[in-house]
Amino acid sequence: MNKNVVSDAVKRRLPRYYRFLSVLQEEKVERISSEELSKRMGVTASQIRQDLNNFGGFGQQGYGYNVDKLKSELGRILGLDTAHNIIIIGAGNLGQALANYSNFQTRGLIVKGIFDIREDLIGKKAGDLTVMPMEALEDFIKENNISIATLAIPKEPAPTVAAMLYSYGIRAFWNFAHVDLDLPEDAVSENVHLSDSLMQLTYWLNNG
Amino acid sequence: MNKNVVSDAVKRRLPRYYRFLSVLQEEKVERISSEELSKRMGVTASQIRQDLNNFGGFGQQGYGYNVDKLKSELGRILGLDTAHNIIIIGAGNLGQALANYSNFQTRGLIVKGIFDIREDLIGKKAGDLTVMPMEALEDFIKENNISIATLAIPKEPAPTVAAMLYSYGIRAFWNFAHVDLDLPEDAVSENVHLSDSLMQLTYWLNNG
Repeated sequence: MNKNVVSDAVKRRLPRYYRFLSVLQEEKVERISSEELSKRMGVTASQIRQDLNNFGGFGQQGYGYNVDKLKSELGRILGLDTAHNIIIIGAGNLGQALANYSNFQTRGLIVKGIFDIREDLIGKKAGDLTVMPMEALEDFIKENNISIATLAIPKEPAPTVAAMLYSYGIRAFWNFAHVDLDLPEDAVSENVHLSDSLMQLTYWLNNG
Repeated sequence: MNKNVVSDAVKRRLPRYYRFLSVLQEEKVERISSEELSKRMGVTASQIRQDLNNFGGFGQQGYGYNVDKLKSELGRILGLDTAHNIIIIGAGNLGQALANYSNFQTRGLIVKGIFDIREDLIGKKAGDLTVMPMEALEDFIKENNISIATLAIPKEPAPTVAAMLYSYGIRAFWNFAHVDLDLPEDAVSENVHLSDSLMQLTYWLNNG
């Protein structure tokens, strides 16, 4: 697999393939042609073939894709064959919602700890976890092999908290704070800017 | 403004411009050149000029952009000069987090009601709201001029619930359910697939 030729757009589409393949698997579909997959996903069959060719092309002429095999290959590419330990910074409503979001667990993504600076939240339950103080963060990260930090905090403290997490060894940030993080080159952030997303709808309502 | 030439990519970038302009406004910056804005946003000055030209081009040679004016123009284009009433379907952790998310209110986006099918949630508080039963949905939508429905429910019931909401007049769906909605042509959905987003990080962790 040649990493260099995989575009951002293709990478962004992979989880969607993975999701559709999971549904096919639930439906006990064993194989599917790019044409059938195309109808389900609402993209052209040629895009499907092109996208999957980036990763070595798992289809067979006249047979189509083996659902189990393709799903497990995509899972491997997406890093889902390895467990990833996650922490959440911020135990407000959003942090708690994310701590309770069971969808992740099935994919080897495990929320190991949740932290907050607010005294009144520390010690409270968030799903199966107990909210910990920020002072416990450094040791916790080192002892629990944490690879992803979720920022469910306001925009103002986010850059400082991200820098602190970086100094503790975190390189992957799932950022819900309403600010873009300015991270060193060996780190990455995936933003979920909820307001930005909602504005796509107000734009549409306004401009048809 | 010519709607037809505004690409999806440009539309997706508009909320980010709006966000950076809001920060500039907070910092009492009155005007900014495309070069300065380019440095802040980490995109090229020529992209900024091109993007904003789509909407009539608000910059002035040798002066730059008037922050207040540009922000209010973009706000108008994004439909933020009109109030939008929102409902949330699903009063689980995520629905409650969204009901409590105060960021929206300041932009004229008002969460008016939250609904659930679960008897044990109905009547409970979610922020300032009280969870209502699904039976109250139709009348509520008609009486409260609701334009956006948020789906904070599992994937299985989502298509049926969306079809029901459509029949009650809803055309804009903010979809957190882990499924793509198949809506009639005069409706639109903006998906927030949290697992898909998190997989961008596991991909990166796996492929560097």
